[in-house]
Amino acid sequence: MKIVIVGAGSPYSPEIFKELSGKSEILPVEEIALVDIDTKRLSIIHSFLERFSKRIGIHARITSHAHWNTALPGADFVITQYRVGGNAARVKDERIPLSMGFIGQETTGPGGMMKALRTIPVALSLAHSMERLCPDAWMINYTNPSGMIAEALSKYSSIHSVGLCAGGIRPAQQLAKAASVREEEIRYDFFGLNHLNFAYNFTIHGKPVSEELLQKTLESRYDEATEPLIRALKLFPSSYLQYYFRTQKRYNDITTAEKTRGERVLELEKVIYDAYANPACDDEPAELKLRGGGGYSQVAIGVLEALYTGVDRWMVCNVPNQGTVACLPNDAVIETACIVNAAGIKPLPQPNFPKTVWGLVCAVKNYEQLAIEAAVTGNRDLALAALVAHPLVRDADRALPLLNALLEANREFLPNFFKES
Amino acid sequence: MKIVIVGAGSPYSPEIFKELSGKSEILPVEEIALVDIDTKRLSIIHSFLERFSKRIGIHARITSHAHWNTALPGADFVITQYRVGGNAARVKDERIPLSMGFIGQETTGPGGMMKALRTIPVALSLAHSMERLCPDAWMINYTNPSGMIAEALSKYSSIHSVGLCAGGIRPAQQLAKAASVREEEIRYDFFGLNHLNFAYNFTIHGKPVSEELLQKTLESRYDEATEPLIRALKLFPSSYLQYYFRTQKRYNDITTAEKTRGERVLELEKVIYDAYANPACDDEPAELKLRGGGGYSQVAIGVLEALYTGVDRWMVCNVPNQGTVACLPNDAVIETACIVNAAGIKPLPQPNFPKTVWGLVCAVKNYEQLAIEAAVTGNRDLALAALVAHPLVRDADRALPLLNALLEANREFLPNFFKES
Amino acid sequence: MKIVIVGAGSPYSPEIFKELSGKSEILPVEEIALVDIDTKRLSIIHSFLERFSKRIGIHARITSHAHWNTALPGADFVITQYRVGGNAARVKDERIPLSMGFIGQETTGPGGMMKALRTIPVALSLAHSMERLCPDAWMINYTNPSGMIAEALSKYSSIHSVGLCAGGIRPAQQLAKAASVREEEIRYDFFGLNHLNFAYNFTIHGKPVSEELLQKTLESRYDEATEPLIRALKLFPSSYLQYYFRTQKRYNDITTAEKTRGERVLELEKVIYDAYANPACDDEPAELKLRGGGGYSQVAIGVLEALYTGVDRWMVCNVPNQGTVACLPNDAVIETACIVNAAGIKPLPQPNFPKTVWGLVCAVKNYEQLAIEAAVTGNRDLALAALVAHPLVRDADRALPLLNALLEANREFLPNFFKES
Amino acid sequence: MKIVIVGAGSPYSPEIFKELSGKSEILPVEEIALVDIDTKRLSIIHSFLERFSKRIGIHARITSHAHWNTALPGADFVITQYRVGGNAARVKDERIPLSMGFIGQETTGPGGMMKALRTIPVALSLAHSMERLCPDAWMINYTNPSGMIAEALSKYSSIHSVGLCAGGIRPAQQLAKAASVREEEIRYDFFGLNHLNFAYNFTIHGKPVSEELLQKTLESRYDEATEPLIRALKLFPSSYLQYYFRTQKRYNDITTAEKTRGERVLELEKVIYDAYANPACDDEPAELKLRGGGGYSQVAIGVLEALYTGVDRWMVCNVPNQGTVACLPNDAVIETACIVNAAGIKPLPQPNFPKTVWGLVCAVKNYEQLAIEAAVTGNRDLALAALVAHPLVRDADRALPLLNALLEANREFLPNFFKES
Repeated sequence: MKIVIVGAGSPYSPEIFKELSGKSEILPVEEIALVDIDTKRLSIIHSFLERFSKRIGIHARITSHAHWNTALPGADFVITQYRVGGNAARVKDERIPLSMGFIGQETTGPGGMMKALRTIPVALSLAHSMERLCPDAWMINYTNPSGMIAEALSKYSSIHSVGLCAGGIRPAQQLAKAASVREEEIRYDFFGLNHLNFAYNFTIHGKPVSEELLQKTLESRYDEATEPLIRALKLFPSSYLQYYFRTQKRYNDITTAEKTRGERVLELEKVIYDAYANPACDDEPAELKLRGGGGYSQVAIGVLEALYTGVDRWMVCNVPNQGTVACLPNDAVIETACIVNAAGIKPLPQPNFPKTVWGLVCAVKNYEQLAIEAAVTGNRDLALAALVAHPLVRDADRALPLLNALLEANREFLPNFFKES
Repeated sequence: MKIVIVGAGSPYSPEIFKELSGKSEILPVEEIALVDIDTKRLSIIHSFLERFSKRIGIHARITSHAHWNTALPGADFVITQYRVGGNAARVKDERIPLSMGFIGQETTGPGGMMKALRTIPVALSLAHSMERLCPDAWMINYTNPSGMIAEALSKYSSIHSVGLCAGGIRPAQQLAKAASVREEEIRYDFFGLNHLNFAYNFTIHGKPVSEELLQKTLESRYDEATEPLIRALKLFPSSYLQYYFRTQKRYNDITTAEKTRGERVLELEKVIYDAYANPACDDEPAELKLRGGGGYSQVAIGVLEALYTGVDRWMVCNVPNQGTVACLPNDAVIETACIVNAAGIKPLPQPNFPKTVWGLVCAVKNYEQLAIEAAVTGNRDLALAALVAHPLVRDADRALPLLNALLEANREFLPNFFKES
Repeated sequence: MKIVIVGAGSPYSPEIFKELSGKSEILPVEEIALVDIDTKRLSIIHSFLERFSKRIGIHARITSHAHWNTALPGADFVITQYRVGGNAARVKDERIPLSMGFIGQETTGPGGMMKALRTIPVALSLAHSMERLCPDAWMINYTNPSGMIAEALSKYSSIHSVGLCAGGIRPAQQLAKAASVREEEIRYDFFGLNHLNFAYNFTIHGKPVSEELLQKTLESRYDEATEPLIRALKLFPSSYLQYYFRTQKRYNDITTAEKTRGERVLELEKVIYDAYANPACDDEPAELKLRGGGGYSQVAIGVLEALYTGVDRWMVCNVPNQGTVACLPNDAVIETACIVNAAGIKPLPQPNFPKTVWGLVCAVKNYEQLAIEAAVTGNRDLALAALVAHPLVRDADRALPLLNALLEANREFLPNFFKES
Repeated sequence: MKIVIVGAGSPYSPEIFKELSGKSEILPVEEIALVDIDTKRLSIIHSFLERFSKRIGIHARITSHAHWNTALPGADFVITQYRVGGNAARVKDERIPLSMGFIGQETTGPGGMMKALRTIPVALSLAHSMERLCPDAWMINYTNPSGMIAEALSKYSSIHSVGLCAGGIRPAQQLAKAASVREEEIRYDFFGLNHLNFAYNFTIHGKPVSEELLQKTLESRYDEATEPLIRALKLFPSSYLQYYFRTQKRYNDITTAEKTRGERVLELEKVIYDAYANPACDDEPAELKLRGGGGYSQVAIGVLEALYTGVDRWMVCNVPNQGTVACLPNDAVIETACIVNAAGIKPLPQPNFPKTVWGLVCAVKNYEQLAIEAAVTGNRDLALAALVAHPLVRDADRALPLLNALLEANREFLPNFFKES
């Protein structure tokens, strides 16, 4: 088996290795090809991974590539974790909306749209290369915004692909903790989109979860959204829903903080790469914890394992709707409970999705579909319509100057919008 | 034929008489029964209508009733235009949200929800009386919020009913003016809900309308919503969409105005009733023009005529979705192009509804359905969920105090919420 | 206005003229272009129509064309009534299935499939000529099998088209007779396909029809289908349903009759054309009555009138499903109640289609869609699958020799199946 | 864990024990309660099972019950394999239709309807007892007609239930043999109903199966249905489809055979029970092989295991459609690929079900739904409509006498149809 990691210069690449550790019988990896355009970071991470592999018993050959074309031939799985424009672009995604009175966040709101506009053309370019060089391989994407990338891939490429997010297992983790059971015993329905979703119909080993236990589990969300609302909905919401349900508070929190999350990450990165570069370092450095945002690898390797071994596995993934949720288009990618096996990934039906929140999900999906079309075509009208469709913007008078500022600031990463004449 | 008008003390009752004028052969009305709990206003309007009928040649017998029970027996059509709580309640619907930073408006936003909570129980009570006293009659409702009342009636009563709004013919009026053609030659598809809708696919006598002519027609909307947005959408929006697409500007306009529209209407009403009360007055007084908001009667009598004569007629009405719009529940009442005849009112299919605005429509319909359930049950959690589902509120931290203030201020009109123990 | 009639040598062309008579103000026809490849018949009918027009006061110019290309430019409406292979092919459609133990009939069963295979390529060729020569014109098709032709046109051509059949007004005619009311007061829902349909939910001027009156109306069907079944279904079935519900009896009746209907028509045609050719003849000859099968013109000119004048009109037409019937594909053409006006033809929703017969309708539609694909591609496997999908064939052991015999007998009219190598 | 077997006097009960053998760690069964109204057979089988358990190492306590009420309390799983009316009724289901020119078969055609009419009231009675006595238990039904029983249970009872059939694993078995792979590596989509289904989209370990390999696999069906049809469809059909696709041949085969299958089974049963009754017999007797029809237990215990352990498992089951197949009602039970785990059984989506055979499936489901309503209500009109909806009957002239004969012959088992006055 050959795995390609695109964006392998990321400080999270070692997580993937850690997940593969001890699974060599089930997952006989022969080569792990690291791809990154930032060859300096790639070199640091590659060297570290050689030392780390030795320590944790990974025997696969590790190779480095400045472009994916040399890495893709022979690939079985392509794991993607690149960030177009890096964290510097992320800071703009945060700061520009904030300065104009809107939520500024990596994936939610106008910042998320800009990340999509920068990333989708690159994701499709990679997919088209895979169509030529490794047409049977799976792309396991966890570059954000994961659901939008997945929808663009499913609409505009023929390769096998799936979008992942660590958020899908949060409800299981919280309920397992509240009920003192193993995560594997827990199942639930899952309604919505990446970073905008709700878990419901919880069971532990087939028995419905009691109202009391559910509320105990939801307590972990009480600091993130107004308590009476969460209690009324009886749904386990994604933590990103605080941007929708507590917009004013979140806006105040971010703007009064000294630094945005992107700015803090930018600072931390220097420290983390210094740690990785230390030739004595053969384990994940303590500094990585400060970075936050990990946990994807458990999900990614879980999906990879079910696809490879063919053992059926219940997981939350981003896949086309295909009629499972009646209020959304069939071609809309949703984040939902799926069954993964060698034959692929299929969503499970949701005949009774929650009555309280479907309208919000439709509104955000409408935004997503418009933004995807804007990304593919470079059409400014579609980008404006997308922002107006977004519940966190909607006001057209304010959306237009916001759009102009965001496009201008991202000019170098938006060739579709700024075509040379 | 017998027509009952509930809320007949309204200054708009004469409009209905005017529409019936000259149609006695097609619509042989024998009795028009006026119902109002405000017997003083009812008496003024009744006397005026006797004089007015003489002037315009209406020969139907006119009767007055302080309760609908004496009016309903024998009725063929029940036209409703009552206002629970009167314009005094309307002013609260405007002022309380405005004071807490939200749009305060008669039908849109939190004010509209309060109007629904006050009105739906009364509408259902009237419907249940009709089930007993005139089960084959049609209720033609234009009490606002018209779409929500229509949905409540279709879900909780067996009588024939339809919700109407003058907004459905605005696109035809504007295009007719722009193209110098008769309104009858114009047809369009119509997507959305009462006061949240979009006309599209315009034809004049079967020929698609050119881009130029469409933009010329849309100019009438340019002052109400940002020009580039309207131009990009290529849809004719309801004027109420300004509250969604220009929220900040509308909020500023209303709050900086000396008086709200409800406050101005309250003042005008005194003048208008004085005019009506003048025994020399046998025509609509000039003061009525200042009141605004008329035009419903043309639509109401149009529907009544098609139902009664059986001549097929294309009209925009509020009826259950029944699968015509895929993104909305089958039982959701939508405002859409219909065909009306003696067999009833059926919506026309919309296989290609607009890609740009369906999410907003879903979000508002989600709010509407939650608010209807709240109105019927008096459940505060559902009322909170409704406000949070509403795109103009959504922030749960701010929704809860808003809800508490609104419910308390409407206590006397909300028996479902304030049950005696 | 210019009307083109393709297959104008038909003895029914005068019916169209008769329907136009007295409507010159509403339908100001300037030219009627007659098209037929059988120039001898065309000449007879043309001469007669000149005399007939004089008698009934039609002043339009009449022209004759051996090919549609000279007739189409400037056309507003193209009425089609051609018969590929003539009645000689029809006799084969009857006799070959009968000889192998199957129903042999013009439009129902294997004979109907052969008519579709011969006709669809011609219909599409005409449509493609219209796309070039009169792209805004409407094709009003009543060449059989009318529903299948309509579906082929809607899938493979961009012209406006509609499929018609006189069967759609039969329920109104029968109920009007039973209830002694005018047809115009009657409305019903209409479920199914051309020649396989059921009318239900009857109203007379908006009042539901009583059980007694419905059964009295259905008596006209009692000789055509088993009485207890019709009584149990409470649906008004197309008379063609006797081939499905009384297969054995109909088979026996046809095989024991001296001649098939096609054979009788072949004989009659000589007599009818002789009558038309008589220079003294300026009215529809008595012999035409013997031919039977008329009545389409009332429907065709009714649709034409609604399309042209823009006055809304309820009619039964063959149009794409577009979600109105949930058990059928959106692109399936169904025969259903529609509203016709200048903007086109739209089906009315059927949320409660009959529970008793939807499976049969699905089975026949499955056959139709496979046969349409076979007609377009010339694929024998699809033609076999179509026969096996047909409820009147289904037995694959018997379908294969039947198919081979039918294709061979129709070789000259099936270029898609017998391509020159 | 406690398992109840209803109809435990069946010669197949030992199969269930065999499947449980060696699984005591995973499935810690404490009691197996045998229920049968035929206490003589029950006694023979009980004694044998005591001996058999000793031999194969089953340590669960075995109890016998003449009525389910004493067996149900404490049950976790209720496996059903009873036969209302026994094989004597089955012979009537075969002989009466055959004598009137129709297929006479246990589950397919009019015989299958009679089995449904006899069985559904008993299945619902058992379900209602479970609602009282073991409301959390699962009913694992493999009494035929399995799909119809499952639909009746899902519509008219609140217990957990699933319908099973050995047919769902046949495609895996055949492909595994043709490709020399393990069954576990095979996945497919599965369209249709119990005994009327088609497997398609085969993969072996995620790789699509080649055209050649598929045809090699289908060869096992070539003797059962016309070869060119199977080759054209590219679907793996249930063997019961021969009754639809080769009706004439199957009818001839059955009527010319000396005995029907039911008659042969009746004879064999005596021999088999004699063998079981032999006190020296502690293993499945060779005579059982002659009986045929086994294999269900592997499926039943497979489902039971996934429900109990919670380990996700791909299986073919009969469950409500819930939107997975667009042409069928949401409440229709379909036989389809599912994922089973502790949280229950969910069907997998089928956005691209086969274009060639959906009409037949709709027709048979329409029959099934009408027959289920007939069984529950005892309504003869519905029973007639069901037979007319059935593709193997359809002819109403012939259906009525057939229905009368069948109902009369089953009078003692049809209390709903023959109510005492």
